[in-house]
Amino acid sequence: MQTKALVVLSGGQDSTTCLYWAIKNFGAPNVSSITFDYGQRHRIELDCAREVAAYAGVDNSVLPFNTFSAIGGDALTDSGIAVSSHVSSDSGLPNTFVPGRNLIFLTYAAAFAYRRGIENIVTGVAQTDYSGYPDCREETMRALEAALNLGMESELRILTPLMHLSKCETVELASGLGALPAMALTHTCYNGQRPPCGQCPACELRARGFAEAGIDDPLLQTS
Amino acid sequence: MQTKALVVLSGGQDSTTCLYWAIKNFGAPNVSSITFDYGQRHRIELDCAREVAAYAGVDNSVLPFNTFSAIGGDALTDSGIAVSSHVSSDSGLPNTFVPGRNLIFLTYAAAFAYRRGIENIVTGVAQTDYSGYPDCREETMRALEAALNLGMESELRILTPLMHLSKCETVELASGLGALPAMALTHTCYNGQRPPCGQCPACELRARGFAEAGIDDPLLQTS
Repeated sequence: MQTKALVVLSGGQDSTTCLYWAIKNFGAPNVSSITFDYGQRHRIELDCAREVAAYAGVDNSVLPFNTFSAIGGDALTDSGIAVSSHVSSDSGLPNTFVPGRNLIFLTYAAAFAYRRGIENIVTGVAQTDYSGYPDCREETMRALEAALNLGMESELRILTPLMHLSKCETVELASGLGALPAMALTHTCYNGQRPPCGQCPACELRARGFAEAGIDDPLLQTS
Repeated sequence: MQTKALVVLSGGQDSTTCLYWAIKNFGAPNVSSITFDYGQRHRIELDCAREVAAYAGVDNSVLPFNTFSAIGGDALTDSGIAVSSHVSSDSGLPNTFVPGRNLIFLTYAAAFAYRRGIENIVTGVAQTDYSGYPDCREETMRALEAALNLGMESELRILTPLMHLSKCETVELASGLGALPAMALTHTCYNGQRPPCGQCPACELRARGFAEAGIDDPLLQTS
């Protein structure tokens, strides 16, 4: 039996790099992708994930989430009240932001993978350079992996090829994997603009990574 | 500052016992409850949870889940397709059954608790007597607790007062906690009947626990 991999695909630069990393390591027919529709501020991310997956020739499944807004905002006190899954505030963080949400995403991904006989989950989390999120760290990933495997009596692995790479190194990895053309389809801009605004922290970080790697960002070539 | 507790309340016998255990240990004003609306076959569970919480004088928040059916059944391949959160099959297990789902429930409960400054999560899982689910075992709970606290930089505790009790001992605990009157409001029957069918495995297990404890089930007194 061939080993399979499920890539958590957000439609951004890092997860797209992971998709190509998985294709190289497992073979395209053994790779599929999953995307989370959790009420993100920019729906364009979902479009980008679908386009990247199609371009790479792998399946893309979308999981809907209506739970986050109930955690982040006011809790329901009446089970009859419907909750919009796409509520966002005007003030930066959506009210769907949930602490440790990556734990929730990966647990769902694990359940999804388990049901389909997929042994590996690939995620683009990194603890270097730019991510201060505790739910993206190596130590957290290993603890979560242990909990998941105890809870499902499984032997899943959470693979994090970008964990210890700088943004520059991630760009170089993408280049080496032949992932650059797909980068034209990705989305990074915090302001949800396409072509990207070029001013927001996400655009700046992306630009710096490509600049340090001495590679032109394909996304900017097309815009 | 007073220590607070969040009880995972399903509307059943065990979680109701946990609610009273939490009230005894933390004081009613410091206890709240959370219930998951995940497309369970019997909506009566949600009603029972609300009634039990109201009877005990604690808040009850309901979190909606529309993700399970997408995991259990066919994955979405188009983000535009709406998923019913209450799909169930005629064949026993709802298609919303997700392996390791208790991990997901508790991770959401942890995020909910964290946002509200609640340090303790109380759940009625048990590894004795009747539960063979790997996501209910002591070892799994400790691993999950570790992952949650790493992922959220928190110091949450997952408390499992029933973990090593038999059903009979759980009934005795409930009696000692003064939880028996609230048992009249709980729901156990797999067939979703009220009064309970008395024939299904859940009804039989409940009856045996009360019989062994030598206590009359208040639920049967009212029906």
